[in-house]
Amino acid sequence: MKIEGRNAVLELLKAEKEIDKILLEKGAEGSLGRIFAMARGKNIRVQFADGKALDRESETGRHQGVIAFVSEYEYADLSELTAPKESGRFVILCDGVEDVHNLGSIIRVAECAGADGVIIPKNKSAQVTGAVIRISEGAANHMKVARVGGINYAVDELKKSGYWVYALEADGEDLYSCDLTGDIALVVGGENSGVGALTRKKCDKVLSLPLNGSVNSLNASVALGIAAYEAVRQRR
Amino acid sequence: MKIEGRNAVLELLKAEKEIDKILLEKGAEGSLGRIFAMARGKNIRVQFADGKALDRESETGRHQGVIAFVSEYEYADLSELTAPKESGRFVILCDGVEDVHNLGSIIRVAECAGADGVIIPKNKSAQVTGAVIRISEGAANHMKVARVGGINYAVDELKKSGYWVYALEADGEDLYSCDLTGDIALVVGGENSGVGALTRKKCDKVLSLPLNGSVNSLNASVALGIAAYEAVRQRR
Repeated sequence: MKIEGRNAVLELLKAEKEIDKILLEKGAEGSLGRIFAMARGKNIRVQFADGKALDRESETGRHQGVIAFVSEYEYADLSELTAPKESGRFVILCDGVEDVHNLGSIIRVAECAGADGVIIPKNKSAQVTGAVIRISEGAANHMKVARVGGINYAVDELKKSGYWVYALEADGEDLYSCDLTGDIALVVGGENSGVGALTRKKCDKVLSLPLNGSVNSLNASVALGIAAYEAVRQRR
Repeated sequence: MKIEGRNAVLELLKAEKEIDKILLEKGAEGSLGRIFAMARGKNIRVQFADGKALDRESETGRHQGVIAFVSEYEYADLSELTAPKESGRFVILCDGVEDVHNLGSIIRVAECAGADGVIIPKNKSAQVTGAVIRISEGAANHMKVARVGGINYAVDELKKSGYWVYALEADGEDLYSCDLTGDIALVVGGENSGVGALTRKKCDKVLSLPLNGSVNSLNASVALGIAAYEAVRQRR
């Protein structure tokens, strides 16, 4: 798998992940120089090439002078997220998030808010590819992302383990009236159909944001950011 | 100017904006049928065409079967946002937001949070184009967007008119300790350099979000969403 872009590769280096090789543009300056120094310090093979060679290797077209070659993304196991923990556990479930930009943004938000992990289904969902890692600004390398057969199975397991599971959707209870200090899981719906009907039923509550304008919805990662940071605020 | 996509054109129709013509894909179904009915009800000229003709007319490549032709975007005047208002005024300033996706998302967030307006500079900033309107899901049609010569001039005018002006940036005071119930203006920085040094100095405070992970920043529209909704929460 290829990880492209300066921030994504820097985060990869910081996260101590196994890197097979780094392809760096000749005459590396600024943060590319920092990447070179870090890679050398970790005995990672660095190969120099000109911009055209990087363009050819690039999958996203936005390599910014650096491409790292790594083994496939290592997903976490759901049991790592259902294991007991002293302070309030906090996970995000993605139900049918098929757009790589949305998945990358969701993982970035989850990491900034200090969530323990993100759960995605194997089917009808974007997977953690190099593009998703780049869009997440490398957050996916620091985050446990668990992949499950179906999202409803994950909801059942989380509830068994003591989580409160809340769907983020329209026409639910007011987000700000809900206690978000315990073990919580927030379910974010996909671009097309939102949170599935059965999943919604399985959730302890449906939580909604107040919408004051005429446009009736926020982007998934923005809505998640607002809800996740309301949890951050309450937990302090 | 061309406005493309089903939601953006629906919002345009709802906002009672002047529309010169709507180009609709033949065999319109679902929300396209609704657009047709609304346009006819408003005596707007509707022209049918096949998918290829729409592809040729499309500027964004994502027309979803409908393109509306409208006059240039009508910017608001800054004085509309500095005029007195009974309840707490709330505006967003964009300082060097050059990416059309970011500007569209910011306008969408501002509209959902019930802000009174968005202020952008004439230079070194994305402008309100058809693409921005589509990305905002049509929110730009319901929102006052004022265009100013320079962002520092706008900050001065807002302060004179009684606003508290806060920059959203790293290394500032805690967002959650700040009273956001009065007349407030939030300054969002651009993709490359954030809020400018002089603008930052002119602001009453710099406000920051707690970041709990290793990735050290959130996307501009997500960070704005979190701060704007903290204002929404405090104002209830």
